Amino acid sequence: MKPTAILLLHCPDRLGIITEMTKFITDNNGNIVYLDQYVDQVDHMFFMRVEWETENFLIPDEKISEYIETLYGKRYEMKFHLYFNNVRPRMALFVSKMSHCLYDLLARYKAGELNVDIPCIVSNHEDLRYVAEQFGIPYYVWSIKKDWSNKAEVEKAEMDMLRENRINFIVLARYMQIISDEMIESYPNRIINIHHSFLPAFIGAKPYHQAYERGVKIIGATSHYVTAELDAGPIIEQDVVRITHKDTPESLVLKGKDLEKIVLSRAVKKHIERKVLTYKNKTIIFS
Amino acid sequence: MKPTAILLLHCPDRLGIITEMTKFITDNNGNIVYLDQYVDQVDHMFFMRVEWETENFLIPDEKISEYIETLYGKRYEMKFHLYFNNVRPRMALFVSKMSHCLYDLLARYKAGELNVDIPCIVSNHEDLRYVAEQFGIPYYVWSIKKDWSNKAEVEKAEMDMLRENRINFIVLARYMQIISDEMIESYPNRIINIHHSFLPAFIGAKPYHQAYERGVKIIGATSHYVTAELDAGPIIEQDVVRITHKDTPESLVLKGKDLEKIVLSRAVKKHIERKVLTYKNKTIIFS
Amino acid sequence: MKPTAILLLHCPDRLGIITEMTKFITDNNGNIVYLDQYVDQVDHMFFMRVEWETENFLIPDEKISEYIETLYGKRYEMKFHLYFNNVRPRMALFVSKMSHCLYDLLARYKAGELNVDIPCIVSNHEDLRYVAEQFGIPYYVWSIKKDWSNKAEVEKAEMDMLRENRINFIVLARYMQIISDEMIESYPNRIINIHHSFLPAFIGAKPYHQAYERGVKIIGATSHYVTAELDAGPIIEQDVVRITHKDTPESLVLKGKDLEKIVLSRAVKKHIERKVLTYKNKTIIFS
Amino acid sequence: MKPTAILLLHCPDRLGIITEMTKFITDNNGNIVYLDQYVDQVDHMFFMRVEWETENFLIPDEKISEYIETLYGKRYEMKFHLYFNNVRPRMALFVSKMSHCLYDLLARYKAGELNVDIPCIVSNHEDLRYVAEQFGIPYYVWSIKKDWSNKAEVEKAEMDMLRENRINFIVLARYMQIISDEMIESYPNRIINIHHSFLPAFIGAKPYHQAYERGVKIIGATSHYVTAELDAGPIIEQDVVRITHKDTPESLVLKGKDLEKIVLSRAVKKHIERKVLTYKNKTIIFS
Repeated sequence: MKPTAILLLHCPDRLGIITEMTKFITDNNGNIVYLDQYVDQVDHMFFMRVEWETENFLIPDEKISEYIETLYGKRYEMKFHLYFNNVRPRMALFVSKMSHCLYDLLARYKAGELNVDIPCIVSNHEDLRYVAEQFGIPYYVWSIKKDWSNKAEVEKAEMDMLRENRINFIVLARYMQIISDEMIESYPNRIINIHHSFLPAFIGAKPYHQAYERGVKIIGATSHYVTAELDAGPIIEQDVVRITHKDTPESLVLKGKDLEKIVLSRAVKKHIERKVLTYKNKTIIFS
Repeated sequence: MKPTAILLLHCPDRLGIITEMTKFITDNNGNIVYLDQYVDQVDHMFFMRVEWETENFLIPDEKISEYIETLYGKRYEMKFHLYFNNVRPRMALFVSKMSHCLYDLLARYKAGELNVDIPCIVSNHEDLRYVAEQFGIPYYVWSIKKDWSNKAEVEKAEMDMLRENRINFIVLARYMQIISDEMIESYPNRIINIHHSFLPAFIGAKPYHQAYERGVKIIGATSHYVTAELDAGPIIEQDVVRITHKDTPESLVLKGKDLEKIVLSRAVKKHIERKVLTYKNKTIIFS
Repeated sequence: MKPTAILLLHCPDRLGIITEMTKFITDNNGNIVYLDQYVDQVDHMFFMRVEWETENFLIPDEKISEYIETLYGKRYEMKFHLYFNNVRPRMALFVSKMSHCLYDLLARYKAGELNVDIPCIVSNHEDLRYVAEQFGIPYYVWSIKKDWSNKAEVEKAEMDMLRENRINFIVLARYMQIISDEMIESYPNRIINIHHSFLPAFIGAKPYHQAYERGVKIIGATSHYVTAELDAGPIIEQDVVRITHKDTPESLVLKGKDLEKIVLSRAVKKHIERKVLTYKNKTIIFS
Repeated sequence: MKPTAILLLHCPDRLGIITEMTKFITDNNGNIVYLDQYVDQVDHMFFMRVEWETENFLIPDEKISEYIETLYGKRYEMKFHLYFNNVRPRMALFVSKMSHCLYDLLARYKAGELNVDIPCIVSNHEDLRYVAEQFGIPYYVWSIKKDWSNKAEVEKAEMDMLRENRINFIVLARYMQIISDEMIESYPNRIINIHHSFLPAFIGAKPYHQAYERGVKIIGATSHYVTAELDAGPIIEQDVVRITHKDTPESLVLKGKDLEKIVLSRAVKKHIERKVLTYKNKTIIFS
């Protein structure tokens, strides 16, 4: 795997941006290995993901951001993020009692499918410590009291631990606790949740029971970035499965578990590969 | 096609119902050609659809209902409907300006896929008269004023016409008008609507625009029986299609049209084949 | 709708092609409204679809091809096609006895969904003349004898008629006849077929019966360009539907009809929108 | 969980079978908790799965089979299997080098989703020993030489071990070895394989590469019982996922892994729940 730089950007659509940006890279001896762009014709916004080999690139890695900002940033009102494929992001997993999403992510991690480090697993229960131990990953438990009297204190301890471990993003792998606004603001568009319904249907608690009551013929799961509003953040991935009148709330839970783990893993993978760009509470997912 | 009787029933689940009902049919020389049953383990209710050839059946067609009611009705607190495959139901189509669902249903009708009569098409606009004329079906237009000042009058005229045509059930093939409670009560679980979203997400007007705003990754369509509460009746059929950030509200409308026509036609077909049983705002769909 | 030019091209991948092509367009005052490109990393081939408004384009429409060929064609070993959105392609429909695909295409055509002209419908049977008459489209019947003794003669007459009508491409909407190699060569990658299976499974006759015999749990339909080898041409679109052991060959045919018409219509739409590029018996489908 | 008996049967369809079988159970104080039946209208065969609580059943467990055989077996030319829900089947897992199916099954097993015992994991490689150790399950390695010179010997050792462990059925969780006819005959319809294509498309080796070459727009996975003919046994479950021209053989492998594990786990679950009945190289899957 050759070293590459990955640039995600968006700006108001103007004639010639794509020409200029690709020229900037190729003129400086960058070999473009991936380019995908998209124009939002409603908002007239331009979005691009471009990746190039940096081996012979004339600008050193630590200067690229500065050059892009200087040459194009202000001129095009451009917002951008720059990543390097040889810098592995560090992911924290938050879990409660159900193991399916956790096992699915760890099995992929172990098989080398996820270019990521997992320094810690956080929970409010002891239940899944055995899974963490199977994979040799530190497991931290902070119990939150039912009256939330220690919630601020717990979140402070969690935040300290996350900082110490230089965590880049958090995955809520069926973590059954509300995240405080403060924590959300510390990880903007960097906390990924899996909600066990086809959002925006069945927001909140017990979505499978809600689905059963409503008598739907299809159920779903939704992975999204966490924002201050419950279950309302930018959607990264969704999928569905057909059900029938024969399904009970219990069988819906079982069918849903397969959806949840696949949908969450797909979203996490897209995030790790820097293929998700958020704009106005929506996501652009590059191919 | 041999003549058959079709019995749809439900009652509290008790030991031996299925034995007794099948024994009743076979003892009276009915040849069972279809049997499907289902027990709701939450509500302890028993549901069955059974169909048998009546050629040598000892009880004449017009007496079967009476016998079932007498022998089993009260004893089992049974509710049932009896149909005969040689009695074609009569269907009225209500449309506004979009032709895709109308064409889809009429093309199937013409190809002999729907065992039904279509004596009339009703609209609030002249736009689709040409389709009705292509298929030689009477087309009635009643314009409803924006202030609804003539709504009661129009519905009365419609109801008279439906009665004269001995209409058994109504299909709203993208009919963009609210149906009055009175009309709904006249056709309980016999008005089929297609809603252009994956209910209960995006109830009400412009669901594709709502879906676009929310940034979902999948859109759907839902066919349901019309009840007094908007878009909240028993769901008969749903289906979905994957979309991306590249879709605009306009492309969602186009993709949705394919969903709508297929979902509505499947629901209509199930209804005509007497394979839908409603219970507590939900449907049991027999195979 | 402003006038646009649509360029579909492919060539060996080289540094800077995308820069150069977009620069060519914007330098000559073309406003790019669509750009999608793709690099085949196995074959190192570059594929692009770019569309631009020609209102202020400095090169006149009839000269654009020449300029591209001169400036880039040889240098990049580039193969390209140029289209204009205000030139409607002319489509011939070939049918036999089943109406579902024909109705689906004509209903879309009538609703303005397909930017195409349909000067003729061709068949080997009289059965669907009534559909053509409903839509006011000339219907030509040439019967092919079972021993094929008149096949060459019939195809000659068909080809003459197609030429007279300046037909650009042919859609076999469940046309149950083999097309001769000569006719295929006259319309390379311009004859679209719908095969009623998930190719390459169940090539040839009676695929639903083959699927029934094999006991598959999912059936499909495939739309592809016709090549000399039966059912082996470049695939444009496929879709599937779940079935169960309860399905009979007859119910598979019914379920399959819904698949066939949707899959064929999607493929025809992509073709009309110039979003299909063929390469090495495969298709690149632009978004 | 109350103790139940599960009866799977099939026989030529005759008037009154369902009445008689349900009467037999209820007359002997069995409380039916599940009944599903199906008539193959082509072959005129009757299939049934019925499950009843045996707490007050008048016939002792060990005599039920004898009674059914005596009372109905010969009379109806009936073939049947009888199971008890409190007898956990014993499953052997065969693996090679890929861990995704193995992890998926073990995670479900650990979460209590599979009512099964797993006494052993068998492999031809050491690679996945660490997974077996994570879950504390004995891991046996028998290397088969490339020239198959020790194949008979290895299979004998495997068969001995399987017998010692009283294994009821085998799951090939991406086991990349051909199973000998002798071993297949020892476990008729009791060896479950996952093939990484939508059978019958792409039989044999490297199906994802075959799919890439053919340019299909959808790939699939198929779980089936192993028979003497390669990839041709009764299909239990299939599923598919959409792909595009952008997918490489490598990305197909990754996408396929998600399919494979879900499809295999669904098939294994159906098998364990005694909901699969095989007939004429096809399966009836009860709901």
